This record gives sequence, structure tokens and C-alpha cells, in this order.
Amino acid sequence: MEKKFFDFIIHGGDYNPDQWIKTPEIWDEDMRLMKLAHVNSATINIFSWSLIEPEEGVYNFGWLDTMMDKLHENGISVILATPSGARPPWLAQKYPEVLRVEENGIRNEFGVRHNHCLTSPIYREKVREINRIIAERYKNHPALKMWHISNEYCGECHCELCQEAFRDWLRDYYHNDLEELNESWWNGFWSHRVTDWSQINSPKYRGENHVSAMKLCWNRFVSDSHISFYENEIAPLREITPDIPITTNFMKMYDGIDYQKFAKKLDLVSWDNYPAWDKGRNAEESAETAFVHDAFRSMKDGQPFFMMESTPSLVNWHDINKLPKPGMQELSAIQAVAHGADSVQYFQWRKSKGGHEKYHGAVVDHCGHEHTRVFRDVARLGTVLEKLGGVTGKYSNSKVAVIYDWENGWAVKHFCGFNNVNRNYVAECVKWYAPFREKGVSCDVISMEDDFSKYDLVIAPFLYMLKDGTDKRIEDYVANGGNFLATYLFGLVDKNDMCFLGGFP
Amino acid sequence: MEKKFFDFIIHGGDYNPDQWIKTPEIWDEDMRLMKLAHVNSATINIFSWSLIEPEEGVYNFGWLDTMMDKLHENGISVILATPSGARPPWLAQKYPEVLRVEENGIRNEFGVRHNHCLTSPIYREKVREINRIIAERYKNHPALKMWHISNEYCGECHCELCQEAFRDWLRDYYHNDLEELNESWWNGFWSHRVTDWSQINSPKYRGENHVSAMKLCWNRFVSDSHISFYENEIAPLREITPDIPITTNFMKMYDGIDYQKFAKKLDLVSWDNYPAWDKGRNAEESAETAFVHDAFRSMKDGQPFFMMESTPSLVNWHDINKLPKPGMQELSAIQAVAHGADSVQYFQWRKSKGGHEKYHGAVVDHCGHEHTRVFRDVARLGTVLEKLGGVTGKYSNSKVAVIYDWENGWAVKHFCGFNNVNRNYVAECVKWYAPFREKGVSCDVISMEDDFSKYDLVIAPFLYMLKDGTDKRIEDYVANGGNFLATYLFGLVDKNDMCFLGGFP
Amino acid sequence: MEKKFFDFIIHGGDYNPDQWIKTPEIWDEDMRLMKLAHVNSATINIFSWSLIEPEEGVYNFGWLDTMMDKLHENGISVILATPSGARPPWLAQKYPEVLRVEENGIRNEFGVRHNHCLTSPIYREKVREINRIIAERYKNHPALKMWHISNEYCGECHCELCQEAFRDWLRDYYHNDLEELNESWWNGFWSHRVTDWSQINSPKYRGENHVSAMKLCWNRFVSDSHISFYENEIAPLREITPDIPITTNFMKMYDGIDYQKFAKKLDLVSWDNYPAWDKGRNAEESAETAFVHDAFRSMKDGQPFFMMESTPSLVNWHDINKLPKPGMQELSAIQAVAHGADSVQYFQWRKSKGGHEKYHGAVVDHCGHEHTRVFRDVARLGTVLEKLGGVTGKYSNSKVAVIYDWENGWAVKHFCGFNNVNRNYVAECVKWYAPFREKGVSCDVISMEDDFSKYDLVIAPFLYMLKDGTDKRIEDYVANGGNFLATYLFGLVDKNDMCFLGGFP
Repeated sequence: MEKKFFDFIIHGGDYNPDQWIKTPEIWDEDMRLMKLAHVNSATINIFSWSLIEPEEGVYNFGWLDTMMDKLHENGISVILATPSGARPPWLAQKYPEVLRVEENGIRNEFGVRHNHCLTSPIYREKVREINRIIAERYKNHPALKMWHISNEYCGECHCELCQEAFRDWLRDYYHNDLEELNESWWNGFWSHRVTDWSQINSPKYRGENHVSAMKLCWNRFVSDSHISFYENEIAPLREITPDIPITTNFMKMYDGIDYQKFAKKLDLVSWDNYPAWDKGRNAEESAETAFVHDAFRSMKDGQPFFMMESTPSLVNWHDINKLPKPGMQELSAIQAVAHGADSVQYFQWRKSKGGHEKYHGAVVDHCGHEHTRVFRDVARLGTVLEKLGGVTGKYSNSKVAVIYDWENGWAVKHFCGFNNVNRNYVAECVKWYAPFREKGVSCDVISMEDDFSKYDLVIAPFLYMLKDGTDKRIEDYVANGGNFLATYLFGLVDKNDMCFLGGFP
Repeated sequence: MEKKFFDFIIHGGDYNPDQWIKTPEIWDEDMRLMKLAHVNSATINIFSWSLIEPEEGVYNFGWLDTMMDKLHENGISVILATPSGARPPWLAQKYPEVLRVEENGIRNEFGVRHNHCLTSPIYREKVREINRIIAERYKNHPALKMWHISNEYCGECHCELCQEAFRDWLRDYYHNDLEELNESWWNGFWSHRVTDWSQINSPKYRGENHVSAMKLCWNRFVSDSHISFYENEIAPLREITPDIPITTNFMKMYDGIDYQKFAKKLDLVSWDNYPAWDKGRNAEESAETAFVHDAFRSMKDGQPFFMMESTPSLVNWHDINKLPKPGMQELSAIQAVAHGADSVQYFQWRKSKGGHEKYHGAVVDHCGHEHTRVFRDVARLGTVLEKLGGVTGKYSNSKVAVIYDWENGWAVKHFCGFNNVNRNYVAECVKWYAPFREKGVSCDVISMEDDFSKYDLVIAPFLYMLKDGTDKRIEDYVANGGNFLATYLFGLVDKNDMCFLGGFP
Repeated sequence: MEKKFFDFIIHGGDYNPDQWIKTPEIWDEDMRLMKLAHVNSATINIFSWSLIEPEEGVYNFGWLDTMMDKLHENGISVILATPSGARPPWLAQKYPEVLRVEENGIRNEFGVRHNHCLTSPIYREKVREINRIIAERYKNHPALKMWHISNEYCGECHCELCQEAFRDWLRDYYHNDLEELNESWWNGFWSHRVTDWSQINSPKYRGENHVSAMKLCWNRFVSDSHISFYENEIAPLREITPDIPITTNFMKMYDGIDYQKFAKKLDLVSWDNYPAWDKGRNAEESAETAFVHDAFRSMKDGQPFFMMESTPSLVNWHDINKLPKPGMQELSAIQAVAHGADSVQYFQWRKSKGGHEKYHGAVVDHCGHEHTRVFRDVARLGTVLEKLGGVTGKYSNSKVAVIYDWENGWAVKHFCGFNNVNRNYVAECVKWYAPFREKGVSCDVISMEDDFSKYDLVIAPFLYMLKDGTDKRIEDYVANGGNFLATYLFGLVDKNDMCFLGGFP
């Protein structure tokens, strides 16, 4: 099987020409430098909303038209972002409902990014609208090769709109049967039997925060809200540009969204990879990174994924940020490709002059020229990647799988008992995964709902929760000759974090 | 002197048949298992309000009638709880004033437990009402042997009703004399002289939080609020069942309520004992536990108390929860009896299927049968306790007392100066108490207001505050031949945390 | 050059007779003890507002009249404070706008001190009013020698009045040009281009908190607000008592106010010096203290300053507060004088009977008499200081300067990158300063805006930000033979925390 979007490995990354709109000479210099760096792709428009729609209904696309043309003329493919990751100030001011509300009930003010209410009908409408305009404008532009939806979806909102949406979600999940919910949440405990859906609010420190089944539902609801927000985003794109593939960038094993569920909605999975190569624990770090690569590859049955972000040098958000040793970025990039990545992309092409990420590593530093170690390393890696184009689109084929399941991860996090401080689902899975990697045995990382039959061995560390039917599927797998290895904390509860009485169901 | 409520040592604990209302076969199994475990008592109805009054004014006592009968038929005494520890969702939804307000002024939402406003007239009325109905229904039931009021009273509320109640409390404490309050709080400092009672609010991080005398008053007010809440609870019980003794379960040396004051209102003191036998410091832990036992025994002049809760195995709320070694629970139970407990009770009889405490230890585990080490240990202990019935109701007689005084504890906690980080009143008292225990010398643990005359030796660690008249009582005691031992931090301030000028008053 | 306010070294400190208004015998005893302690000055009225204006418009100055007379009769100079550091409860109750609002948008309640809104027109009016009354009353009193404005100005407020004032401040700073602000804050990043001034709020955790240029402006605004609050305070004093010098007490290198800017508005700089002589690191502590002394001396070109507060023994706000070794306070006082202090003043003369600072060291302890080690030490030091009167008013003359600049300090604190956890501007400066001190070479501590030409050597540790023209001034200095030593992190950004592209401007 093979699925490829490009005949070459994508080499490029986040590019913010909108920050340099008053210095067009820098745009031209960027074209020159990109070619020098063997860069063949740029991801643009990620946080440009306040520039392309400076006032409600007033659009300013001239700069983006120019940039699209310029990139195309220079042979650089465009991955075009939708701008929902950060709204303009005027939008927040005019429609406060787009801003999140914290657990304390206080609405956030405008600021930072990734902070929209997941439910707000107005924000969804505004996002659909701007996406439609962008798609219409560039649908035939030859540079447009892929859509990058928003940026690193994350977080949650506790506004009244979200409360109502949560209640609707629960009605659906529990078949509009409040008694089913009461039973599933074991609401007899501490006198919590609800008699009306309106009595339920989101879990919060100043309200209900001890009902693990409720917290599981909240996790599922928030995750589904991100997914439906995404589906709202892509509707006009699917309609206008049906042939342009769609992705969005995931964040490692971020547990706020069920990536295994979300991945099914994407044409291509991509993720942002920031291993800490400067902490003196590279063996552990590379094992964990390999595990994450394999998890993203496994989300679409072995189809290659994109490494949408990585740093060409250091980051700016560790406690202490050190430049990794020479060659480290190349090793890291090749590791990604070896695990199935069809891209090596950077955040960021050029360091900002100001703003929060001005000291985050970039291909082009504040000095502005190509005579830096980092630039030279990137350019050399570019030539290596050019030789590897033949590997794109290839599927992998593993005979061993480790189960890492998002819903199980939530359950493992929430329950109270045994070891409350050192429970680390990812670390436990990596511990079981690492020996195979060390011996060169390719491993998949799958959910408990994935097909076990293609594996000789399935390992289930901390598989605390068994969803409906999982027990049967394990039994069938083993009955058919499969090898299933479970660890302690296996199979204690069902999908509502309710204990199986009498042992394994 | 002797005061006994039972001719045998109570062996049993918290039982939650309301969680298993849909599986009555488990009720029958529980009866069989209780007898196997030599259990003679069950505490029920603690968090059942949402089941017994599923809607306002609609009652559902059928299950409780059945359970009372069933327990009685099986020779098991019932300690019947009032359900105020956790209200039903409908009650919170209809009457938001019953929910607590935090220091930030934001009202909590419904959730968890032990979170009612201490002042709310509506909640007090609702509690009185349900208690009256329960008392009327079971006043003649032969299984009813004791009332267990609410559960682990704790916490505080900062709503407007509580502000007004605090001001009323202050008016009373300071003889309706604002100038007395100004002097007692040394309000000349930092320009705090108040000119109207309405200028006073509860202490809070975003308001007044540096006036130790005010914080002392707030502690007293909160403590008194719990006590008056309790008195409101028991009014219908005293009226309808004057012969049924009343207790409520205290939490170790919890400093939110003056237990020494509260104890005077109880027929019997009971407390929840959870020593950490799994931390490798059993010598220290058993010394501290002994100290606490002796404190509760001393609260009613040596009258036996109940150990209302303990775990038959592990808890679920430590950082890391380990099963204690075999035999440890028996040692712990016998320690309680030796220090004056007339009961060995567990939280909990049977592990919940769901909810926050499903991994808290229980006599009956999720497996549901009796073939576990824990069950066997409990059953064997039951036979031991059956042989010890003769000790119930006996008073102790100590010649040595250590002063541990709740109000002094608040003062020691609040003042700013000297060592601000390691001041630990309980630990200091245990340090002075432990050598006597090691030598087998029985010690009482008393307040500074208790009678000193019956002791040969009174030890006063950290007796920082001297209430009105305490100096005189110490002098008289010593003049009459008593031995009084004080440590550093002795006698610095009066009841308002005001320094004695020129030294000891 | 010479500027002296007294022919003798001031020896005295904070005195709170208002706390002892009901025990006038203590006032008389204080006079006797002050003379015994060789005290020649008292700072009074600091937190007396609720006593001098117990109700709005009702004044009670009798006690202060008496005290002024009494101090004068005993030869003790009065440094008279304005009382704005803590308002009376009635004022907060009647005009809630005087209370601060936290970042969460919740207004504080009355409490503690130093917590007024910096903008409130009502509070400014009330302060001006009470200051006018005090000045009129005592303008001709012979004891009045200096004004002490408020106390330890600090903190910030996020109320709507402050939001509007912040926007006005920004309009002024950025020439009423929103596009200049957008460029200066690099608002293209994360879609932050504002299109109306009203879209800007104060930085806060639940809003914008990642724009370092904005945070710099907020720091400047808050600092300027304190300064304009001060200017409002002193207007009536300058008018009524033009010959009485004015100071306010600073707090070490407190970074909430640009002391270098504020100092220009004072006749005399003073600061509160609390080295931790009880932590076993006296070498480091005395180096840092020397650095701070020199910074305050340098703020007014070498003019002597006052050490307005210090403890004669211990403080009460460390984690653990120990009495320093005998003689330590004398060494500490002489260090101050040697670095340019013309005063040795204590907080506090007499320990309070109650309140938050009752265990803070004082000349007179709770025992009330002079027979203590601390009292004797103070008295002996008084005699030493009496012999040193000739040094007052003398200017110093250093040939070496270390740049410590408040605005640069804010920039160093805010940026994200490199080492995010151990960046310590003060410590870095002290590290470069200490070797000169060890060799007995006098150092000034100046801002980057001060004149470099009088120094042979200027050292600029962590001079991360270069304000407009600073680069030119450095170049000129070096061109004229000066020696300028910069460290890593030198000259990366301009006053808006915007990187210089291509290197040093």
C-alpha cells in the first residue's frame, strides 16, 4: 500500500511574512535564503487573521497574493493555514462569547492564542466565513498544496454555551436516559443522583471534581468539541478544494484531545516534535520520540505522517534552553523519516524581531544572513532529504503493537487510589516499547479499538479501562493464536470507570 | 464511674446499601458476610439524601425500612446517620444559598460533599425537616441504637449570610462595644480602627488577612457555626428519641472546629482514625495516634469513645497507598480499645463499584467474596473483640496531663514571627507526651480550661496563649502542690493574641 | 559639593504613639527611653489616618499636637508622615473605587495596607485634602524637620479606572499613533494588531501576558502612576511648607517602581534596609547591601541618603527569624553611613502589643525597660553616631560605575528564552560590583541614562536593552577614552524589547 502527497520529502516550515510586511526586501531575501537552504515548502497564514481581515468584513489579501506568487515562482510549495488559532482583537471585542471562560466562571480577556470558546456559534461562523474566502481566493493557485487547519488545537472552555453543549453531549452519550447517567457515574455515592440534566455542570475545582466518570465524559466532550470545530472549519475547504489534502498539527501525546479519534478526520496526520536534546538524557528522549512517531504513524494504519514543526536549533520555553550539539538536528530529522515522516519542517523559518517567540530557534537568525552553523546544518540536511524522496508514501508493517489509548489515559489519570503521584501512562508504555526499538523490531502504537489480528504480539501496559467489547476482542485474538501481554492495573474498569465486580469481565 | 451504651464492643462500620439498591442480592450477601466477619453494627444513611428525598417533599424510605429490618433480623445494631453531609442536586439548584462561597466571593457549584453554608436558614430548615421525618419513622425501630450526625463536619463559607452572622458573633463576643473590638484587635496598627460593624468582613487573602486576633475570632465563629448547625440538626432527634445517644465523627486534630467545645454537646465522642502504617515510621505514628485517642477520651472526662472509622486495609488518598503488613489492623484496633475506644468501625464495609472512594479499603473487596486476607483478618479480630466486651464503659484515671488546646492552636498558627515555617503544635505536644506512653504512664490530653487538680503533673507545650483566668488557675494548681511544666513560647499573649507587657500576666 | 539637612546623623525611627493613646504614661516613658538611647528623631503618623480622621471630615489632632510638642521639648526632630499608606475603613466602605482590583477582575476588600488604586480621583483628592490639613496645622511647628510621604509605595491595580489611565498613558507614549504601538509591540505576531485603543487592557494571566513590550509599558505606567500619586500628595506640602524637605522610603531594588526616575522628584532618597545577617552568608549579604546603598546614593549624584528603616534586632517575616550576633547591627549601621547614609533609623521604636508586626524587632521590647542587650546596643551606637556628625552632607566621588537600570531590569525579567529560571539581574550586577568593593574602590550604581563621562570605567552587566541614544552615548564615551565593559546578553533589544537586526544598533 502507498499513499503519497508529494514525490519528495517536504523540507521547510512555518514562515511569517506577515510580520515583515513593511520590509519587502526581507521577503526577497527569504526567497534567496530558502533556495540556499534547500527548502521546498512554506507554511503561511497561521496567525494572519488580523492582517487579512483588519476590520470586520474588510479584507486585505494583497500581501498574501504576492507571497503565494513569490513562493510559487521560487518553486516552493505552500501549505496554507486557516487563521482560527488566534482571532483579531476587534472580533473578541465585538463578540465576547468567542473568549473562553475559566473554571472560576470569569471570562478571559483577549490575549495570547488558542483560546476560543469551542462552542460559540459566532466564532464557528466567523471561522467558516474567513476559510471560505481564503479557499475561494486561492483554490486555483498553483502553489497551494495542502491545508493546515488552525494550529495546535488545545484547551477547554467553561462558558454557559459549553455547559449547555456538554449537557447535550451527555444526553446523546447516555441515550437521553438520566438514570443511565446516574448509574454510570455511580451517583448514589455522596448523594449525587441528578434529577434534571440542568443540574449538571462541567467539572471544576469549585464544584464537582471527584466523579471520575464525569471527568471522562468531559474529556470526551472537549475532544469531540475540537473535532467538530475542525469539521466546521474544513466544510468550505472540502467543498471548494476537494483535491487539496488537509491536516492539522498535533502536539505529542497531548491528552486534551483524543488524537486517535481525530486522526480519522484528517487526510494526513502531522505533529510538532520538540525533543529535549539538551538535557543529557538522549537515550530516553529518543525512545520516547520514536514511540510518539510510531503512535502518529499508526493512527492511519501505517500511512506516512508529517513532522510539521521542529526546531532547527533550540527552543525558548524550556527552563534552560541550550543549543543541541552539532549534527543533532540531522539525527532527529532522520529519525522522523525512518519512523514514517514524509516531511522535516521547522518552527520557524526566520526569528521574529519582537514577540514571545523571538528567541525560539529559526533557520534564519536575527543576524539575517546564511553564515551561521544552524543555517549550514539545515542546508546540508536539505541535500540529504533530496536524496531520500523515494521513500515517501511508503507504509510500514509491524508485527508488534503497544496499546496506548487516549480514553484509557484519561481514566488512568483520574482515578484516586494506589499510587496517586507517579502514575505516568506514557512512560509506562515507553518502558514496554523501548526494548523492541533497541532490537530493531518495528512497533505500532495503537488504540484498544484497533485491529489486533495483524500482530504477532500485542502489549497492553496499564490497560486499566476496557471499553465495550474489548475483552471479547482480546479473547478472540488470543484464541486465534495471538499473544497478548498485559501488566498490572489491567482491566479494572469499564468505560465509565466502574469496577468489574468479581474480576475481569 | 462507668458509662456504657453497649455491653459489647461495637464492630462494624459504614455501610452503603443505597449504592446497591438495584442489586438486592448483594444486600442478602452482605448479611451473610457480616455474620461471617463477626460484625455487630452498621452505620447507614450517611449520604442517602438524594435517595430518600429524590424530589423536594417526595420521600422514598422503602429501601431503608427493608434494610433496618434486615439488619435487625440479623442481629446487627444500626447507627443511623442524618444525611446533611451531602445534599441532593435539586436542593442546591433550587436554593443556591445552601452552597458555599469561597474567599474570592464566587459561589461554589454543586459537587463533592461537606460543602453547605453553615449559616443558611434554608439549609438548616431542610436539615431539621428531613431529620424529623427520619426520627419519626424509625423512633421505635428496634435496630436503631445510636444517631450519627452528618459526617466529618468541616470547612467554612464566606457568603453574605455568613458575613452578617460573623458580625453578630463579634457583637456578642465584644459586648456590642466596637471600641473593645478595636482595642482587642490592636486596630490602631495600620489604620484599621473600624467605626461600624458593617466595615468588618471575614478574613481573606484579598482583604484583611494580617490581623491575628480577627483570625482567631473567625476560627471561633466558624467552629461555633458548626456547633450551632449541629444543635439545629439534633433538635428533632432529642425531642422524638430522647433515649437514643448522639455522636458525630471527628477528624483527628482537625483544627477547623474546637472539638473540646463541641464534645460537650455530644453523648459520645467518636473519631475517624487513619494512621499511615505504610510509611515506615510506625513508632512515631503510633505515638501520635495514642495521643489523639487520649485527647478524645479526655474530652468527656475519661468516658470511652468510638473509633467510628478506620480502614481494614489501605486508604486511597495518600500519595502512595500500600497495604499494611499482616496483623497491623488488629494491633491498631487493640490500641484504640486500650486507649478507651468501645468500638472498632471501618470505612467501609464494601468497596463501591464507582465513585471517588472505590479503591479505599473495605472489608468486602470488588471480588465480592470472603476469601481474602483482609476479610479473614477482620473476622478474626471480631472474635477477639467479642471476648473483650467486659471493658466497655470503663473510665480511665490518669495522673499526668498534656495540655492541647484548640484556641491556643489557632493562635500558634496565626502569629507572624520567630519560626514561621516549622511551628507544629501537635508535633510539639506529642514530643512531650511520647515518653510517658513509652513508660506505660497513662496521660490525659486536656484543654487549658479543664480541671488541673486531679493530676500530679500538667505539661503545657507551646502554651502561647493564656485565656482569661488561666494564669490564676495555674498558680493555684502549683500553690496546691501541682507540678506544672511549661516550654518555650509559654504565656506570651492573651485570648486576643495581645502580648502581655512586662512578661507573664 | 555638599547638601545637608541636619548637622548630625539622624538616629531614631518609626514611632507609633497612636497605638498607645490610651496609656499616656507610655508616651512619657518613651521620651525618657529615647534620650537614654541617644535617639534624636522620630518618624510619626505613618498609619494614623483612622485616628486623625475617625469619621469623614471629623478630625482628631489633639494627640498629635501633644506628641509633636513632647518630642520637641525633648529635643527630638520629627519626620512627619502623610498617612496614605493605609486608609481608614470608613473611606474604603464609602468609596469602594479606592480599593484595588486584582487581575481576575475582583475588587479587594478593605485590609492590610499599601493597597489603594493608583488612579482613583477620589483617593487622590482625599489624600491631598488630609495632607493639606496636616501641613497647615504643623507648618510652623518647630519639631517638623522633614516630610515622609506615605510608606513603601508598591503594587498595582487593574480596575477600570486604571485600564483607562493605561490607555491614555499608551496614547501619550506612542504619540497617539496606534500603528506605532502595533509595530512597537510586534503585534503581527499571533494576530494581535489592535484597531482601537479600547481593545487594550492591562496584562494579566487571563488575558494578554505574552507581549513583553506591553508588559514593559505596563511597568512604566504603574511606576509613573506611583510617581504621579506622589506628586499629588506633595502638592499641598510644597505650597504650604516650601522649606521642609521631602522623602519617601524605598524598598531595596523593588522592581515595581523605577526608583531612578522617582528619585528625581525627591529632596532626599531614603530606603529600608533589612539585610539577613542571620543566614550564615554575611559576605554575600554585605556585598549586596553595599551595592544597594551605592545605588541609592548614585540616584542623586552622590548626595547622602537616609536609611529610613532597619531592625535593631530581628525581623518577623523571614521563614526563620534569628537575632543577629552582638555588634552586627552596629556594623550594619556604620556600613550605611560609610556608603553615604546620613541617618540610622529603625523600624520600630517600640514593639506593638498586638497586630502583625508585634514580634518584629524594636528598640524597646515588650518588657518595656532599657535593660536589654538590644537597647544597650542601640544606645551605644547612638553615642558613636554623635561623634560622626561632621560627615553629613558630604558627596562621594567614584571613578567606577556599574549600570543597573530599572527599565532594563523589567526587560530582562520579561523575555522568554535562553535561561528562563536563573536570570537574576541584581545578582549579576552585584557579581561585577563586589570585586571593586573588596579592593576598596568606590563604585557608583547608575542608570544607562546617567552621565558616563565622569567615570574611568563603566560596567554594564546584562545590559540587554539599549534605550534610544544609549548606543551613541556609549560610543562617544569610549571614543573619549572611557572604558566600557559589557557582558553577555548585551544590547540585544531596544526600549520595546525589539531585537536589533544584524547585531548591535
